[in-house]
Amino acid sequence: MRTVAWSDGKLELIDQRRLPAALEITSFSRCSDVARAIREMVVRGAPAIGAAAGFGLALAAQESSAESAAELMADLRTAGVTLQSARPTAVNLGWAIERILKAAEGFTGTVPQLQERVLAEAQRLADEDVETNRRMATIGASLIDDGDTIIHHCNTGSLAAVDWGTALGVIRMAHVNGKRVRVLVDETRPRLQGARLTAWELEQYGIPYLVITDGMAGHFLSRGEAQKVMFGADRVAANGDVVNKIGTYMLALAAHDNGVPVYAVVPTSTIDLAVATASQIPIEERDPAEVLEIQIRGEPVMPPGATALNPAFDVTPHRLITAIVTENGIVLPPFDEGLRRVAAA
Amino acid sequence: MRTVAWSDGKLELIDQRRLPAALEITSFSRCSDVARAIREMVVRGAPAIGAAAGFGLALAAQESSAESAAELMADLRTAGVTLQSARPTAVNLGWAIERILKAAEGFTGTVPQLQERVLAEAQRLADEDVETNRRMATIGASLIDDGDTIIHHCNTGSLAAVDWGTALGVIRMAHVNGKRVRVLVDETRPRLQGARLTAWELEQYGIPYLVITDGMAGHFLSRGEAQKVMFGADRVAANGDVVNKIGTYMLALAAHDNGVPVYAVVPTSTIDLAVATASQIPIEERDPAEVLEIQIRGEPVMPPGATALNPAFDVTPHRLITAIVTENGIVLPPFDEGLRRVAAA
Repeated sequence: MRTVAWSDGKLELIDQRRLPAALEITSFSRCSDVARAIREMVVRGAPAIGAAAGFGLALAAQESSAESAAELMADLRTAGVTLQSARPTAVNLGWAIERILKAAEGFTGTVPQLQERVLAEAQRLADEDVETNRRMATIGASLIDDGDTIIHHCNTGSLAAVDWGTALGVIRMAHVNGKRVRVLVDETRPRLQGARLTAWELEQYGIPYLVITDGMAGHFLSRGEAQKVMFGADRVAANGDVVNKIGTYMLALAAHDNGVPVYAVVPTSTIDLAVATASQIPIEERDPAEVLEIQIRGEPVMPPGATALNPAFDVTPHRLITAIVTENGIVLPPFDEGLRRVAAA
Repeated sequence: MRTVAWSDGKLELIDQRRLPAALEITSFSRCSDVARAIREMVVRGAPAIGAAAGFGLALAAQESSAESAAELMADLRTAGVTLQSARPTAVNLGWAIERILKAAEGFTGTVPQLQERVLAEAQRLADEDVETNRRMATIGASLIDDGDTIIHHCNTGSLAAVDWGTALGVIRMAHVNGKRVRVLVDETRPRLQGARLTAWELEQYGIPYLVITDGMAGHFLSRGEAQKVMFGADRVAANGDVVNKIGTYMLALAAHDNGVPVYAVVPTSTIDLAVATASQIPIEERDPAEVLEIQIRGEPVMPPGATALNPAFDVTPHRLITAIVTENGIVLPPFDEGLRRVAAA
């Protein structure tokens, strides 16, 4: 099963807000609904939202009442803007939209032919995502030693991509290859993607894990109880700065303070050579309700008047990163040249 | 109102598990029930559990069927062991028990006289706690600048002591003195003492605050959006290593990485000169259910098979601490000599 799949003229997504309580597939036939699904995190994870946006454009092409390829192209551009605005930080969203629009641009055939071309490109993008992630997993698995305990942040598995995923794909591949691994799963407040999704995936794969709260990672690192730290990214700047789920920076700091290697696992589509450093990357601010709505035994935790802040991502400076794993090879510091090389490969 | 108070021959505690939903006072007339209340965190916070243990011994004295002061002394020692075993990390618990037992030791009067003496010493300890904290607050408030945003971990306010508290007492005093302060409240997973208790206290005091998840602190520190980091401690080693609520180490690291001062605010009763470094201090492991029981909109978050780890404290190495604030003055690095000085004062 794929997290993002095309079936019978519709986009099907695993509703990640419902996991692990229920594995529900939701169908989408309108591009605007896909944009909302991305915003509301029905689908999340940089590679997965890229693939979903690709199919969103295929739906926009189907929905269009355009009478010429040029008119349809204009509709696709509008749809691209709508999809792009759903989430600002992950570069894969813009990357996927650009790629689909480029495949459509200048097309001189009929409207149905262009619709077909857009869908074919979206399908190709999704298929390539699986292949890219599998290569990344194989390459990255070489970094994991038999017996490792790995601290992992957020969710970067099959659910964060079309299949396999990034950092969790690496861990899964090491397990498939027969290495004994154990994962300390950062629960990843506020949305709890670790506790919800990574824990659920690890159960499917039969990989032993223990959930920890985000503030516990430093304790285990300082005691020598974890040998690796791994996460994905929503955007990597040209200098190797990593923008990833909030909490990543503090995790990387704690690993660095204890000499534990820190690996960011990203497809080259996540590398944004157009931004020199992460300070130029917008950090999405989400609804404070995501922080406030936590409950214990059915009761709210915070006073009724409480307010909160909710930045969705943070910046891990490249000096804290040991290596960046991509489908085109492992990049070591200084990252600038290596990132250019793998992005061009 | 005091968090820990003696009234009509009973110990009264604010039940901190019920806040902020309800402000409930629970009465205790048996020492074993006080031990359980400490273990189950009806009362928590290093100074508060010290004071509660003092009154627990007063209850043990009342309950005793001893017919001589020597017999009662033996009962008190047994009760001290029970109370001490409730929580292993905070030194104040042992410190308070030792102090009461010392006041009772070698007493040659009647059983009622010894009962009275134990109660008087417990009362004195609680009264001194308020006075100590008020002095600490006054001394520490000098470190806060008008307009500061302060990141605060766990709860260290009135609820963590008999009154005033440690780090939050300092912030409150700065506010009372007319300084404009704002607090970013670490929610402090897993027990959420920040989101529950610190947020509630700050509302009482009229101090502006915003709740953040523990993983967000680094983001705000890296952006220059916080000028101070403050917390209390459960035990401070002779070299200045601080054992405090899980997550403190990662917060201190993030502050240190951004040149933001880190203040631990502790009464001298929290300083344990008998341990050279924090590596000798036991870290309490609590029930994993405290991690697993989190809910969003009434639904469990984790898969049913999930397991978790739950260390309650971590070690912040002294190299990350800017200063330790005590009721006898502010101690700067290297801490060894200064801690000995304030502890002896």
